[in-house]
Amino acid sequence: MKLQWIAFDADDTLWHNESLYHASQDELRRILARFAAPEEVNRRLFATEMRNLDQFGYGIKAFTLSMIETAIEVSAGAIPAPAIQQIIDLAHAMIAHPVELLEGVEATLELLGQTHSLMLITKGDLLDQQRKINRSGLANCFSRCEILSAKTADEYSQLLERKDIQPERFLMVGNSLRSDVLPVIGLGGWGVHIPYPLAWEHEHAEPPPKGHPRLYELASISELPSLISTIEREH
Amino acid sequence: MKLQWIAFDADDTLWHNESLYHASQDELRRILARFAAPEEVNRRLFATEMRNLDQFGYGIKAFTLSMIETAIEVSAGAIPAPAIQQIIDLAHAMIAHPVELLEGVEATLELLGQTHSLMLITKGDLLDQQRKINRSGLANCFSRCEILSAKTADEYSQLLERKDIQPERFLMVGNSLRSDVLPVIGLGGWGVHIPYPLAWEHEHAEPPPKGHPRLYELASISELPSLISTIEREH
Repeated sequence: MKLQWIAFDADDTLWHNESLYHASQDELRRILARFAAPEEVNRRLFATEMRNLDQFGYGIKAFTLSMIETAIEVSAGAIPAPAIQQIIDLAHAMIAHPVELLEGVEATLELLGQTHSLMLITKGDLLDQQRKINRSGLANCFSRCEILSAKTADEYSQLLERKDIQPERFLMVGNSLRSDVLPVIGLGGWGVHIPYPLAWEHEHAEPPPKGHPRLYELASISELPSLISTIEREH
Repeated sequence: MKLQWIAFDADDTLWHNESLYHASQDELRRILARFAAPEEVNRRLFATEMRNLDQFGYGIKAFTLSMIETAIEVSAGAIPAPAIQQIIDLAHAMIAHPVELLEGVEATLELLGQTHSLMLITKGDLLDQQRKINRSGLANCFSRCEILSAKTADEYSQLLERKDIQPERFLMVGNSLRSDVLPVIGLGGWGVHIPYPLAWEHEHAEPPPKGHPRLYELASISELPSLISTIEREH
């Protein structure tokens, strides 16, 4: 069997991303230190993000608005305006931050691009994701770049239908079991999970308890070409 | 000549949008009344939006972050946190607001959909635009919905190429000369300008001084079917 498309998540699969959010959250805890304990800030911020997710979606602007709401809440309205400007300045810095590729990404994409069609599938803020794709220098590796507002089974299903792709010849690689892997294997596709050292609590999901015949876990993207050869040879 | 695609802008072409931004800006002037005159708030907000446009892009979240920065600026850091929460609450209300169609939209799309392929082309925040398309009840009228981060000649040109559309058989309808009409006629397509009573200063553009053979202006979308018949008969 020959796989038709190899699709990649971007944030924390091709380039570092969660580390930027973690660094900003460190700063937020410092800004709010006189109002709340670090754990309390983390807890309240996550609750605010979850409450706002339907309305604000993913990305830096949504994160920033939730940081500001958290700051107002935990300070009971006492946070001074210049501290709120500091929070907005974290957003400016995150957006301006260079894109840092994970190890092995360029070589792997180059190798796989010689034998397969490659697609990038990311979610979040349209402008911000486009900016990162452009800055990454990887845009030319991909035949398609898809930016979704959320990575649900429905969204993947519509995407495969729109592009006329058979799920059983579609493989998706990403750091999130919840967003990149489980919806795809649920549709009959193949999923490769490559964990990133940091993970946003919202992306957490349990793997299937007894494993799954089309789900693999790798430690590094560099192991992907040989896994794909094995899958194609054995199926 | 038969036109192949009729494309529509969405905000302020199919449904009211700028009116929501105006109402929020009215509120912002009230919130800041003790710090600055209304004209000063308008001027500073527009300057902040333009400064942030490259980083934040279009849409409610970008607008809200710019409103907060403006509030901090014009108050010289004296704005209290609860007033900033009021500004964020404007964003929540804008996002939750129902989609209100302009007059004649449904009937016109239904009529034109019988003879032409219809496309929706909008810019801004991905999640917010998808939400409005879904709420509008118009999604089924369109064969394609495209959400761009900006409506430049480059973006239109890539879109036409991707979909294999000849510009001379492509007509775009919208309320913004700058975003909907001028880039399209510049590429060899047809443009129909239908002004909306309110306009964001950033969208302002002068029409070509001596007119243009492929540019039309209508007072209402209801006049579009007969204009299209005329164009197809005479060209």
